[in-house]
Amino acid sequence: MASLRAAARLRPLASRLHPQTTRHYASAAAAKASSSSPSSESPFFPDEPAGPTVKTAIPGPQSKKAIEDLDKVFDTRSLNMLADYTQSFGNYIADPDGNVLLDVYAQIASIPVGYSNPHLLEVAASKAMASAIINRPALGNFPSHDWASILRTGILKVAPKGLDQVFTAMAGSDANETAYKAAFMYRRQQERGGAHVEFSAEDIASSMNNQAPGAPQLSILSFKTAFHGRLFGSLSTTRSKPIHKLDIPAFDWPQATFPLLKYPLEDHIQENQKAEAEALADVERLITTHHLPPCAVVIEPIQSEGGDNHASPAFFQGLRTLTKKHNVLLIVDEVQTGVGATGKFWAHEHWNLDSPPDMVTFSKKAQTAGYYFGNPDLRPNKPYRQFNTWMGDPARAILFRGIIEEIERLDLVSNTKNVGEYLYNGLEDLAKKYPGEFMNLRGKGQGTFIAFDSPRRDDVLRKMKSVGVNIGGSGEKAVRLRPMLIFQKHHADILLDGLEKVVSA
Amino acid sequence: MASLRAAARLRPLASRLHPQTTRHYASAAAAKASSSSPSSESPFFPDEPAGPTVKTAIPGPQSKKAIEDLDKVFDTRSLNMLADYTQSFGNYIADPDGNVLLDVYAQIASIPVGYSNPHLLEVAASKAMASAIINRPALGNFPSHDWASILRTGILKVAPKGLDQVFTAMAGSDANETAYKAAFMYRRQQERGGAHVEFSAEDIASSMNNQAPGAPQLSILSFKTAFHGRLFGSLSTTRSKPIHKLDIPAFDWPQATFPLLKYPLEDHIQENQKAEAEALADVERLITTHHLPPCAVVIEPIQSEGGDNHASPAFFQGLRTLTKKHNVLLIVDEVQTGVGATGKFWAHEHWNLDSPPDMVTFSKKAQTAGYYFGNPDLRPNKPYRQFNTWMGDPARAILFRGIIEEIERLDLVSNTKNVGEYLYNGLEDLAKKYPGEFMNLRGKGQGTFIAFDSPRRDDVLRKMKSVGVNIGGSGEKAVRLRPMLIFQKHHADILLDGLEKVVSA
Repeated sequence: MASLRAAARLRPLASRLHPQTTRHYASAAAAKASSSSPSSESPFFPDEPAGPTVKTAIPGPQSKKAIEDLDKVFDTRSLNMLADYTQSFGNYIADPDGNVLLDVYAQIASIPVGYSNPHLLEVAASKAMASAIINRPALGNFPSHDWASILRTGILKVAPKGLDQVFTAMAGSDANETAYKAAFMYRRQQERGGAHVEFSAEDIASSMNNQAPGAPQLSILSFKTAFHGRLFGSLSTTRSKPIHKLDIPAFDWPQATFPLLKYPLEDHIQENQKAEAEALADVERLITTHHLPPCAVVIEPIQSEGGDNHASPAFFQGLRTLTKKHNVLLIVDEVQTGVGATGKFWAHEHWNLDSPPDMVTFSKKAQTAGYYFGNPDLRPNKPYRQFNTWMGDPARAILFRGIIEEIERLDLVSNTKNVGEYLYNGLEDLAKKYPGEFMNLRGKGQGTFIAFDSPRRDDVLRKMKSVGVNIGGSGEKAVRLRPMLIFQKHHADILLDGLEKVVSA
Repeated sequence: MASLRAAARLRPLASRLHPQTTRHYASAAAAKASSSSPSSESPFFPDEPAGPTVKTAIPGPQSKKAIEDLDKVFDTRSLNMLADYTQSFGNYIADPDGNVLLDVYAQIASIPVGYSNPHLLEVAASKAMASAIINRPALGNFPSHDWASILRTGILKVAPKGLDQVFTAMAGSDANETAYKAAFMYRRQQERGGAHVEFSAEDIASSMNNQAPGAPQLSILSFKTAFHGRLFGSLSTTRSKPIHKLDIPAFDWPQATFPLLKYPLEDHIQENQKAEAEALADVERLITTHHLPPCAVVIEPIQSEGGDNHASPAFFQGLRTLTKKHNVLLIVDEVQTGVGATGKFWAHEHWNLDSPPDMVTFSKKAQTAGYYFGNPDLRPNKPYRQFNTWMGDPARAILFRGIIEEIERLDLVSNTKNVGEYLYNGLEDLAKKYPGEFMNLRGKGQGTFIAFDSPRRDDVLRKMKSVGVNIGGSGEKAVRLRPMLIFQKHHADILLDGLEKVVSA
């Protein structure tokens, strides 16, 4: 398979790039021409461009003008590329200068089934969507008569095994923070003796003064290089980069060592086992000795913003055992890993846990957010304890339902598994050919959720645009691949071609 | 005018309520019949029901069945009324049993221009909206080519005087928290000596450990009975009710006394002046002595969730002077008061400040959220310091633009001013007639943002449904009126009729 892919890669890149020519949306016919090539599988969207079109340097003159104007009202220092979404389709993102790039960053891993996806366009144009947009309810007080059905046919249809309830939120940060709140309430309820035990007068009075016991001296335990969001509670569990944390007050919550695996895995088996054992020991030490006892551990299946750091299923199994042993909840943050990219719908399915996580948070590719749970005691013992005005957004819940329909129709979880394997093999070939350029390749068997380290990462990311690919980084030196779920082998060929061109230049 | 209104009120309520009859959407013709009546002004939406329809007890049999089903997947203990938004129109909210209520609660003050507003329906059905829904960008990295235009013709068009920049967010809580983050970064930048001074190695290292100086020992000062949201940072500034705060860890931030005014204001002038002076003294004491120095004061123009607590323009002027004197930022939380309901677009316009607040936060009726600012130094000195994946939602920004267009087309800020005066006068009449039932009437000159205390508040709220009105409370005993901006005098008559009927029963 690798050799077939390599053969496909030999097709000159220039045939797909048309600098300085008219905007070019080739039909998919070319890609279909040879049915024996792995890059010629039937495309999900026949109208998708057959390849990138690079007409100008990026940003081009039109973009530059628009960015200068935008900067007057909006901070553009983190701007990567000005996009024209009306011209973006499938895996391809367009800009105002007519450049059309293969997008394997996908809005920081948050576009699931392609730009301007025709089915989602139908969902967006539906009466149900229009009503949800303009008649936005305060969900906790005035849910619509069809909210149960929207949940059941959408968000709850894909609930992780063992978790049949959801609390809906707006984005990853508040999904995590509301999960943390549920964990704190649960722990204090246990300490009080159960759901039927009333708050004490001291609890009530002290809570209003931000003091214990009402505002308890408890914590959430997270891991070094973790990312869980950037509001005050979630940022207290985020340990990715100083620029995320500097100057913001934080809770004095504990951070455990994350096992830093060495690659290739098969050459470092004992070392990695030791690193994972030490990390688990660190977790247990912090649970049993930290001055603010953790009531929950929060962890990403693959640390994403922190540099695409993986751990083995055995590590996560150990963490589940340890948290059970110490009556600490396990919150799995699937904001970036969830919804299909790893070859499973939820990345934690790779672990085969004996008992499910207590809560699983989601956002990004779901295009809505929240946390799943199963234990009914995670519904707080009184109303209005877990509550806010909007509590999510039915419009986005309806969109997620449409996304799930696309995932099912096109069997996209199988797709990321298969294409991920193909892409990983291609990268492995490149790593053999250019060992200094592709280091610590990781994500084998994790769908398209693949990363490698690059000694000149930012330069590589930048140059990839000139060969027609929009690609992102994570951590200090990782190139993280976050293609959409509709990324196919013929897209992988374009990506691999582009990488080779850039590193060999 | 009051007498005319009273005459209108004499029209038997039964003529607008049709228990156990077919669903009834009368034309507006009846309301127009007598052009001399203040309740017969030209309706904004001729197709709006002429009055409520109450067919069953609420919840009725259909609703009860649906609520029972919903409870299996969604916490319904805070459910107020199951709604059918497809049948809701203008000021009227419908339920699955065919009840149609005048809604003066409006999704906790968040519906601005009516259910199923025809102009918003057009906006929702537009191509721009569809693209914004399905091609949601990571705004900080990949804004769309028309984002500047969406901001200028929408959110920034109504920016408070002196504030020409915005950072967009998702809801009130994260709008406030990102404003707090901006305040902390600004203060630390000043302490460091300016935007050009780099972080120290100690800043960087300690921030990753959630320790000072990187995670600074600073605070946000808020007021007793304030509400600013329910995530960890915002909840640390919220002091509304124990049920909002119990069991959630909080920062040890200071709370100042809020002046508790006595009513009627004209009878307690000196007492109230004294209360406000004492509150300001308390603010100054906390700014100068608290062990976590406040870098900003956050305040609502009218404390809303905390019980509709008002203060005078002089108090807010004093607060602006005090914060300037001590180099503390002033953040005005207009999440509930903003966007027209008080007879000004922003409630703080009532204060005639010499210099504007440093930041103004918004959400709810804007249907999007964020904070406005003017001082360019409130853009952090480096990119990615104020950043997250979505950074708001262009779809909701486009909706806010449509809302602004409706506010302008129908001159709705003038409307809330005028109707508010009419409604206030009517309530004053009721308070004279039933002094034990309408206490501490407040909100004179504040548009329709009116409240009063009721000794049997929860009972009144419940019974109002039986006379066709959906109405909400705040604090311990306040009835808070939060009609939409399209609430007119003929709606006020229905509300006043209903209140009189309930309290006199």
